[in-house]
Amino acid sequence: MKRNVYLDYTATTFVSDEVLTEMLPVFSTNFANPSSTHHFGREALAYVDKARDRVANAVNAESTEIYFTSGGTESNNWALMGLALANKSKGNHIVTSQVEHHSILDTCKKLETMGYKVTYLPVDEKGLVNIAELIHVINEKTILVSIMTANNEIGTIQNISAISKIAHERNVLFHTDAVQAIGAVPLDVKNIGIDAMSMSSHKIYGPKGCGALYVKKGVKIENLISGGNQENGKRGGTLNVPAIVGFGKAIEIACRDCTINNKKIKTLKEYFINRVKNEIEDVTINGHAFQTLPGLVNISFNFVEGEALMLLLDLEGIAVSTGSACSAGNKDSSHVLHAIGLPKAIVQGGIRFSIGKATTKDEIDYVVDVLKTKVKKLREISPLNKKSKLGGSCTCIQTK
Amino acid sequence: MKRNVYLDYTATTFVSDEVLTEMLPVFSTNFANPSSTHHFGREALAYVDKARDRVANAVNAESTEIYFTSGGTESNNWALMGLALANKSKGNHIVTSQVEHHSILDTCKKLETMGYKVTYLPVDEKGLVNIAELIHVINEKTILVSIMTANNEIGTIQNISAISKIAHERNVLFHTDAVQAIGAVPLDVKNIGIDAMSMSSHKIYGPKGCGALYVKKGVKIENLISGGNQENGKRGGTLNVPAIVGFGKAIEIACRDCTINNKKIKTLKEYFINRVKNEIEDVTINGHAFQTLPGLVNISFNFVEGEALMLLLDLEGIAVSTGSACSAGNKDSSHVLHAIGLPKAIVQGGIRFSIGKATTKDEIDYVVDVLKTKVKKLREISPLNKKSKLGGSCTCIQTK
Repeated sequence: MKRNVYLDYTATTFVSDEVLTEMLPVFSTNFANPSSTHHFGREALAYVDKARDRVANAVNAESTEIYFTSGGTESNNWALMGLALANKSKGNHIVTSQVEHHSILDTCKKLETMGYKVTYLPVDEKGLVNIAELIHVINEKTILVSIMTANNEIGTIQNISAISKIAHERNVLFHTDAVQAIGAVPLDVKNIGIDAMSMSSHKIYGPKGCGALYVKKGVKIENLISGGNQENGKRGGTLNVPAIVGFGKAIEIACRDCTINNKKIKTLKEYFINRVKNEIEDVTINGHAFQTLPGLVNISFNFVEGEALMLLLDLEGIAVSTGSACSAGNKDSSHVLHAIGLPKAIVQGGIRFSIGKATTKDEIDYVVDVLKTKVKKLREISPLNKKSKLGGSCTCIQTK
Repeated sequence: MKRNVYLDYTATTFVSDEVLTEMLPVFSTNFANPSSTHHFGREALAYVDKARDRVANAVNAESTEIYFTSGGTESNNWALMGLALANKSKGNHIVTSQVEHHSILDTCKKLETMGYKVTYLPVDEKGLVNIAELIHVINEKTILVSIMTANNEIGTIQNISAISKIAHERNVLFHTDAVQAIGAVPLDVKNIGIDAMSMSSHKIYGPKGCGALYVKKGVKIENLISGGNQENGKRGGTLNVPAIVGFGKAIEIACRDCTINNKKIKTLKEYFINRVKNEIEDVTINGHAFQTLPGLVNISFNFVEGEALMLLLDLEGIAVSTGSACSAGNKDSSHVLHAIGLPKAIVQGGIRFSIGKATTKDEIDYVVDVLKTKVKKLREISPLNKKSKLGGSCTCIQTK
């Protein structure tokens, strides 16, 4: 029987009940503008202050180092553009990796049109940035290294402590896109040595439309969005109080329940991987075997077009993705799977399954059962599969 | 007896019940990422599409001309920066006014550091941009005229149809910051001839953290925030579905109830102004007498420091402001009141009262009664007031 199973928690999560409950009074009762100096405004500001403390506590930052934004993408745009502009007198070279989120890569492209030089570090077959290569490319013009903590397509967790150390030894700032890592990876900005860090709410059961940029005290950054005294004059715009409240609660819960949730999620993922490996032949698990996000697994089903498989799973109620949701509609295949060196046939077969805290073993069983049937069906008609019935023709599935 | 009276609807409004009811299912049930191609994502996209249609309908735009943002400030930053960069081959001159919101003025300052020239048009004593001056300053290098529809501090509504016509006759783009005007002023982008228009949700009983930029089909604009295929590749970042849904509903209601709400609000404002004029001497109503927002009135109480009066009103439960909330904490006095030519003593006395759809006559009566007492008290100790008891010393009130 058809079921609805959501295995796309990396794209976004639902807002948890605990979070929504905290948010509700701020919409209509304590609704004022926290920048207003009257008591209605001060009440709203108290909500924001509490949320800011929670975000700061979660990553061992000072509250004054947390700047709320509209989300991870704005944080990434701001971090790169703002740090590059504020440090242009020191140099014009930025180092990042080939597997970053498009909000980093697109901002780098923009910076290149503005006279900055960007090095896009390659990664190994597991998705890890080559540390030796990083050391090699940093030069006297380098002002910033930006490497994501955890990848959104394959889950690989970078050695950001080592990367941060290398950057700092060379007097270079270190930014990390931690959007996927919050709640899954312990992030202590002081211990790791992070100068700027992008965060998002809607990946950790908080509301959409909210994120933050941590900027270490003393690190200079130009504004991306100006126009008011909000956020210590660093980010204009009326504070999105309900979403900020939700983000604060969500990150507190993410830290509180981190161990228990990750254990449960990881167990389910291992069960899923084992069943897939044992019951479906010719599969490749992309990314790192253990240095990876607990709930994310990217699998290539050889001889199978990922898009076609995703559509067939969707018809059975199962939500997965072939890459980041942000790139959906983009006909190019995944830049991340290319970067880890997968051959084209396998790149196009990559499916991201992401397990969340509401996922059940029962759901996983359903997904594996459907997968077995659909992969078999697609392979029978695949022109790439020598055992295919149809040989060189495959148009029937690719109708989307 | 002390009451809580909110007269700061220009700073922000509560989220109305009708709006919140539409938003709730999108937090936890239909919570998916609208960029995801699976059925969960398509469900979320349907919500976004409906909201986009509502926003478009409200201003007579096409749905494809509406781009969701995190709010009015982002829309203003994006409009000016994006239109300036996209049109730099045509020229480097921008015309705006001295009474714009800081999100416009600050972006203009940034553009000046990038080689653009900006003319800040003066306004008359009612806050109206001088049309003859506008004609005079446009030159062959002018690429953009950006004039707000309605002012957030004094409420003055500009003659944007005339301004648009002048810009277009000279082949210059016209942007307007309509954040305060939506729901209060009929805005037909086609009839008025608007190339880009900034909108916000939280001024019209919608949620914070959401706004839109209307960009006329064919008008080129560079991105401010990049990183995904969202918004036709023009604005990266996961769409804030609940807030977008809320904004869509809020703007639909604002248009639906426009006449009845504005009539009620305007009647209350006139009642308020009449009582103040009749019962408190030496008051100045700042701004335009009739070409003004229905709920906003800016009043200077001569010989009275606005900040001090605001604090005393606050102690009696009344929320008003001395300028825009975005500028709260800024010790400079209002750039808008300066621009309309008020002498310094009166500038510092300016208080913005803004009436909303939940305001009652009873509340207005309470506010006037308190005002009478507090203004009297402050005048007795004002060094500016020749009738003052204290003469040249006034430190007791200015402690904030």
